[in-house]
Amino acid sequence: MLVTLLNRPHDVTIVSRSEPEEIPPGFVRVAIKSVGICGSDVHYYEKGRIGDFVLRSPMVLGHESAGIVDQVGEGVSLVPGQVVALEPGIPCRRCRYCLSGHYNLCPDVKFFATPPVDGALQEYVVHPAQFTFPAEGLSPDEACLAEPLSVGVYAARRASVGLGDKVLVIGAGPVGLATAFASEAQGGEAALTDVASNRIATARAAGFSASFFNSEMTGKYDVVFECTGTQSGISDAQRALRPGGVLALIGMGQPETMQLNGLDLNVRGITVIGIFRYANTYPSALALIRRYRDRMKVFQGSYVDMTDLPQFLADRGYQHYVKTIVHVK
Amino acid sequence: MLVTLLNRPHDVTIVSRSEPEEIPPGFVRVAIKSVGICGSDVHYYEKGRIGDFVLRSPMVLGHESAGIVDQVGEGVSLVPGQVVALEPGIPCRRCRYCLSGHYNLCPDVKFFATPPVDGALQEYVVHPAQFTFPAEGLSPDEACLAEPLSVGVYAARRASVGLGDKVLVIGAGPVGLATAFASEAQGGEAALTDVASNRIATARAAGFSASFFNSEMTGKYDVVFECTGTQSGISDAQRALRPGGVLALIGMGQPETMQLNGLDLNVRGITVIGIFRYANTYPSALALIRRYRDRMKVFQGSYVDMTDLPQFLADRGYQHYVKTIVHVK
Amino acid sequence: MLVTLLNRPHDVTIVSRSEPEEIPPGFVRVAIKSVGICGSDVHYYEKGRIGDFVLRSPMVLGHESAGIVDQVGEGVSLVPGQVVALEPGIPCRRCRYCLSGHYNLCPDVKFFATPPVDGALQEYVVHPAQFTFPAEGLSPDEACLAEPLSVGVYAARRASVGLGDKVLVIGAGPVGLATAFASEAQGGEAALTDVASNRIATARAAGFSASFFNSEMTGKYDVVFECTGTQSGISDAQRALRPGGVLALIGMGQPETMQLNGLDLNVRGITVIGIFRYANTYPSALALIRRYRDRMKVFQGSYVDMTDLPQFLADRGYQHYVKTIVHVK
Amino acid sequence: MLVTLLNRPHDVTIVSRSEPEEIPPGFVRVAIKSVGICGSDVHYYEKGRIGDFVLRSPMVLGHESAGIVDQVGEGVSLVPGQVVALEPGIPCRRCRYCLSGHYNLCPDVKFFATPPVDGALQEYVVHPAQFTFPAEGLSPDEACLAEPLSVGVYAARRASVGLGDKVLVIGAGPVGLATAFASEAQGGEAALTDVASNRIATARAAGFSASFFNSEMTGKYDVVFECTGTQSGISDAQRALRPGGVLALIGMGQPETMQLNGLDLNVRGITVIGIFRYANTYPSALALIRRYRDRMKVFQGSYVDMTDLPQFLADRGYQHYVKTIVHVK
Repeated sequence: MLVTLLNRPHDVTIVSRSEPEEIPPGFVRVAIKSVGICGSDVHYYEKGRIGDFVLRSPMVLGHESAGIVDQVGEGVSLVPGQVVALEPGIPCRRCRYCLSGHYNLCPDVKFFATPPVDGALQEYVVHPAQFTFPAEGLSPDEACLAEPLSVGVYAARRASVGLGDKVLVIGAGPVGLATAFASEAQGGEAALTDVASNRIATARAAGFSASFFNSEMTGKYDVVFECTGTQSGISDAQRALRPGGVLALIGMGQPETMQLNGLDLNVRGITVIGIFRYANTYPSALALIRRYRDRMKVFQGSYVDMTDLPQFLADRGYQHYVKTIVHVK
Repeated sequence: MLVTLLNRPHDVTIVSRSEPEEIPPGFVRVAIKSVGICGSDVHYYEKGRIGDFVLRSPMVLGHESAGIVDQVGEGVSLVPGQVVALEPGIPCRRCRYCLSGHYNLCPDVKFFATPPVDGALQEYVVHPAQFTFPAEGLSPDEACLAEPLSVGVYAARRASVGLGDKVLVIGAGPVGLATAFASEAQGGEAALTDVASNRIATARAAGFSASFFNSEMTGKYDVVFECTGTQSGISDAQRALRPGGVLALIGMGQPETMQLNGLDLNVRGITVIGIFRYANTYPSALALIRRYRDRMKVFQGSYVDMTDLPQFLADRGYQHYVKTIVHVK
Repeated sequence: MLVTLLNRPHDVTIVSRSEPEEIPPGFVRVAIKSVGICGSDVHYYEKGRIGDFVLRSPMVLGHESAGIVDQVGEGVSLVPGQVVALEPGIPCRRCRYCLSGHYNLCPDVKFFATPPVDGALQEYVVHPAQFTFPAEGLSPDEACLAEPLSVGVYAARRASVGLGDKVLVIGAGPVGLATAFASEAQGGEAALTDVASNRIATARAAGFSASFFNSEMTGKYDVVFECTGTQSGISDAQRALRPGGVLALIGMGQPETMQLNGLDLNVRGITVIGIFRYANTYPSALALIRRYRDRMKVFQGSYVDMTDLPQFLADRGYQHYVKTIVHVK
Repeated sequence: MLVTLLNRPHDVTIVSRSEPEEIPPGFVRVAIKSVGICGSDVHYYEKGRIGDFVLRSPMVLGHESAGIVDQVGEGVSLVPGQVVALEPGIPCRRCRYCLSGHYNLCPDVKFFATPPVDGALQEYVVHPAQFTFPAEGLSPDEACLAEPLSVGVYAARRASVGLGDKVLVIGAGPVGLATAFASEAQGGEAALTDVASNRIATARAAGFSASFFNSEMTGKYDVVFECTGTQSGISDAQRALRPGGVLALIGMGQPETMQLNGLDLNVRGITVIGIFRYANTYPSALALIRRYRDRMKVFQGSYVDMTDLPQFLADRGYQHYVKTIVHVK
């Protein structure tokens, strides 16, 4: 089978590997059909590292993936032919975080395309059945959105977005859009801001109110999601909250020297939550895709074939506000 | 009746005023017996302002108070002779915060000894019955601790301290001690740190483990309460948390330019909560005093008579880690 | 002004009363335009009592109401001309339930059209501003749905319906439909059951999946709302839940001798919640109407003029699955 | 090694088996020192079944156990010599309940001494390290109480007992006492009732207020735990609650035809929660034992040697309100 390897920064190749043949009990073999390219994939492509995770040997890219069940191990209820989405992180299932339902905090998680763990940009993946979710009625291109949407689903859940809540999402890239969709699906009225007009246009195309941040937003929102990782985004986010509101920080890009107004946090009784990945979100994310199927098209901007990816990346065709979907085979 | 007026910074006088005679329905007249002097009272004494609250005309000091029911209005179930604690903030009962149980965030609260609202350091106060709590079995000196303890009760409740939780309280002044007591009462195992040996000694005298902050505390605590408002306290607090932990910021002293490690907040899924005053805590705070009655003695370091207060303040006898209890009459 | 009085069972008259002229501070005078007739109004019409609430003197009917702001008292931000919905229960704002945000449990609430409190079926009502909600963009006919929808909003909130949750509503009358709308708006996938085909048809017309209860529903739902108050409805509801699920009992019609399977409640870790009225729901209910405006038409089956109501009720034209909207003037 | 086998009802024998020798990675071998005999052990001894769980072949008894670490597998941080408590249920770690932290609802759990799974009444047990908890400073007799206390810890946690809450526990057997201890440790003020004077006396000896149920208890409690599984207990429990209160049903003995007042559940907004076993409680339960070590002595009424157990059970020496601790070797 073909496998997309990142050998080192700016060096991606398609190589051949033998197919996985043995399917252990509780596992499933999936013929991968669609893989979304995420900012982190591009980051590894360009820099070879994210924080402490350093590419030291060739690694398969891709953690947003979907495909078709090909073979199943013993004790698995999935059946060959089903379209499925793959949850990319396999936690240890032994630590306190796993046992208490917060497996996104598991220190021993194996996460696709995070060195040294291989990702999904290959023809077949053997995966635990409980992290492989049937995506009835969805295409693989749609189903692989379950991963970025999971970030939004988890964020909206942790922030307890409720019916009629006024929600502001700062940063209208894919994560911001995912959070806006999830917030709306939980009953919130979501608006987005960005500093780039094209992202504002994309958010509007997705059916959201979107604009530059402005002073009328001050003190108005029940929940604000900060998805830019910039100090100005953080300060705007705090300013936009009403007393008792919730500020959720999403993604891995928040600065180590983030500045908040501590006096204001106290006097206005504000809660700040740091969001890392997600747990127990896939069925909800797939329901979200079904609910907003048409509007979700906004994510899908470019399609390349797996074998064209090296050239595509070399051309730097990546756009933050749309997903690049790689078709496998 | 005698009333303790702060006329301007460094100028406190005892003056005579006519007693309140009419008790409206739903109100109660309390003969004040004990008033705790809090850091904010001292602050107004010294500076004449806290943030936007500026002393513009003479004001009665004191918001930690207890006394004995003297007369009751129509429809009140309290009876003359009962020892009671007075909750010092009277919210508007009309805004969204009041209607949803978060009256500590009410923008129109009238709070004792916050300009221009008079405090309780006077012989009689007429107060709404529902903010006047029977303190069965407690002395007024004990009952007036319900106010500072309410800060701890509310903080421990919002931080969801649970049975067996490892809790660290940074700052061992009265608020830190109150938080440690409340955390222990909710099942937590509370330790305190401080930079001052005498406060560490006081915390130990109250029955808590206490020490300087040290590197063994890193990554160990489920909940950390920051009660110092210093950047080093905040940074230590974040460092002391385990993944998924809760950092609660207490008091009004947090810096406007508070710095947190945003990347760490995200990757470790940390929640930061700003705590402002309290709501619906008095019955719990009184239960807390009854539970730890003996250990609560640690709060009560100095006693002065109301008429001695001007001299006492002039002498700067206030100590942060003990309460000064003013006896009225 | 004209007022619709229920004098005794089966005796409704339209009488003239003088208009309220003085608007106290914090109050607003509303020209009532639409009033929904609820099962409880019909119940008082037919029986003269519901449980302990007994009609002893003539009472104005109607607790689902909307209108147009006519005059405002001091300190009110509403302006004449605004369409508003009126929340019908005015709690005491002094008891523990009011102070903690659960004012639906206030023992001293004054609730429209609950003896001896007059309802809203009159030309003008003077109402506290904080229980009068602007319904921007909605007609009075739509805005008066905020009351029955509040029941659903509160139920879905207390049951913590989440994104992708499978929700079953047993009983497809107005309360069941309201709960289904609120559940869907919080992200749930709501289906309804009923024993009457016409109510099933109505639920489908509202865009929901609906059917008779059947055995395939066993063990499948995260949340089940019981809105029939029948033992068979209750037993079906319990059967339909998955382990760890939530069974919410809505309305005032549940039997005093309700039977549940206690062993099953325990072994499957089920939670049962009793829902009484609502608190802090009006803004959310109005958002819900705006979200599903078109589908909400299903509620609005009959329209009568206020002066035709006596004849209408005498003719027993009330249908449980549609609302009768009374137009005032 | 010696093993205590229940062959069939009323037939217990001590037999010899070869010791487990291989310790897989992540597992630990524990030399069992103390095993509590629970009502369910006695039930299997007397009837050979509990509900659907039927003894079909000889089974080792005992699910409340503690001992000393003997050998450890790879990747385990426990060290030989440590006193440990063993959590008796090993969930599948794959189902939705396991992944979301509710592993007590796992349909595939393997639970000690639940047919056909062997229990702990044997000299050595090989157990997953993450379900083996260090019990620093406790004796094995004390540590094996972590199992019955876990039921109380989980119940008090799910019922959200808070500081100052008035708590009533109906039924003063071991589970009732465990729940009272856990409620007090979370800040509640716990009282117990029972129909048997000797159990009331035991509860008092443990430091709790205890009595027969009486009419003064009506409408007074924030949380009521029902631990008798009798209809009169259930009805008393509902009656004892305040509006908005929580009724927790504990144990596996609740009747299939349990009757509740449905109208009252609704009108007073009551929540009923079914409690099954526990999840994520062991560290908290061990903290609870350390906190109330002296008062916990009330549990430990009889001690027998493992080899005396057959005679002991034959003599029917079991008492519901004390634990029988079996000493292994």
